[in-house]
Amino acid sequence: MGNETHPRHAAAVSPDLKAANLLRLRRIEGQVRGLHKMVEEDRYCPDIIAQVASVQEALRGVSRTLMRNHLTHCATSAIARGGEEAERMYGEILDVIYKHLR
Amino acid sequence: MGNETHPRHAAAVSPDLKAANLLRLRRIEGQVRGLHKMVEEDRYCPDIIAQVASVQEALRGVSRTLMRNHLTHCATSAIARGGEEAERMYGEILDVIYKHLR
Amino acid sequence: MGNETHPRHAAAVSPDLKAANLLRLRRIEGQVRGLHKMVEEDRYCPDIIAQVASVQEALRGVSRTLMRNHLTHCATSAIARGGEEAERMYGEILDVIYKHLR
Amino acid sequence: MGNETHPRHAAAVSPDLKAANLLRLRRIEGQVRGLHKMVEEDRYCPDIIAQVASVQEALRGVSRTLMRNHLTHCATSAIARGGEEAERMYGEILDVIYKHLR
Repeated sequence: MGNETHPRHAAAVSPDLKAANLLRLRRIEGQVRGLHKMVEEDRYCPDIIAQVASVQEALRGVSRTLMRNHLTHCATSAIARGGEEAERMYGEILDVIYKHLR
Repeated sequence: MGNETHPRHAAAVSPDLKAANLLRLRRIEGQVRGLHKMVEEDRYCPDIIAQVASVQEALRGVSRTLMRNHLTHCATSAIARGGEEAERMYGEILDVIYKHLR
Repeated sequence: MGNETHPRHAAAVSPDLKAANLLRLRRIEGQVRGLHKMVEEDRYCPDIIAQVASVQEALRGVSRTLMRNHLTHCATSAIARGGEEAERMYGEILDVIYKHLR
Repeated sequence: MGNETHPRHAAAVSPDLKAANLLRLRRIEGQVRGLHKMVEEDRYCPDIIAQVASVQEALRGVSRTLMRNHLTHCATSAIARGGEEAERMYGEILDVIYKHLR
C-alpha cells in the first residue's frame, strides 16, 4: 500500500476512464448526501437500504473502470517484461480481485 | 418502493442507531471526496480500489444498522400480528437480504 | 454453533421447503462432479469459473430457503415471546446475514 | 461460452494447481453430501447456513486457483501478442471478475 507521504502513481491513465470516474464520484457524493437526508427524515429502512445498494453498485463501476485501466496500462508492461515482475503483478491482481472486489 | 412525493417512513427509529448512521454517512462523504482526489492525482489503481473497498465496507455498516433497526422496531410488530401481515414482512426481509445486501 | 454430539435442530420445518432443498442439494452434488470432470479435462478456465459461479448461485438458493424457514418457523416464536429472547434472535439473524450470506 | 460438443480447453495447466483443485472438488462433493444429511435431519437452519457458507468459501478457492492459472498460462501469451487479441483478453478477464467472482 502506498502511504500519504510517498503515494504510488499509475504508470498511465486513459483520459476517458479518468473523466468517467471523476463524474461518477461526484454523483456518488451526491447520493451519499441523499442517504444522510433519508436517515435524518426517518425514512423506511428497506428504502434506505435499497439506496445504499445503489451507491455500492456505482462504486463497483468505479472499481471496474480502475481495474480496466490497471490491466491495460499498468499490468501489460509488467507482464510483457515477464519473469519475477510478471509473477509479482499476477499476485497483486489476484489479491485485488479476492480482497477488494465483490 | 416509496416514491419521493409519498415517501414511506420507519415505524420507529432508535436514536442511537440514527446518530451512528448520520455520523458514518458524513465520514463516507469525506471518503468519497478523498477518492475523487486520488483519481484526479492519477494514484496507483490498486491503491484506489482498496479505498473504494473501504467505502463499501463502511456502507455495509450503515445497511447493517438499518437492518437491525428494521428488525427490532418495524418487523416485530408485523410479526407479532401474524397472518398475512407477518408473511408479507418475511417476504420483504428476504427480498432486502437477497437483493440488496452482499 | 451446535456440535456433532449434540446438534441443534429446527423448531419446525416446512415439508415443501425441505423437499425443495434436498432436491437442490442432489443436483448440486452432480454439478460438483461435473466440475471435477471439467478440471480433469483441462477445460478453458473461464468456462469452469462460470460453472463454479452457477453452483454458488444454487447454494445461495439453498440458504435463502433455509432463511425463509428460519424466519417463519423458528424466529417467529422467539420474537413473539419478546424481551431477551427476541433480542438474542435478532442478534443471531443479523449475524447469519452478515457473516454467511453474500 | 464453449458448448459440450466443442468444449474449449486451457492453453496450459499447471499440474500443481490442477491436483489441488481436483482434491478440493472431491472434498466439496463430500461437504455437499453432509449438507444433504443436515437438511434431512432437520438441523438448526443457521447451522446449515454456516455450512453452506463454508462450501461457498471452498468453491471460491477453486475459482481463485483457476484464475491464477488463467492469468499465468493463458492470458500472458495473448497479452504479449498485444493489439486486438490483448484487448479481447482484458475484456474477458473483466467479465469473469465482475460476472462470476464475488
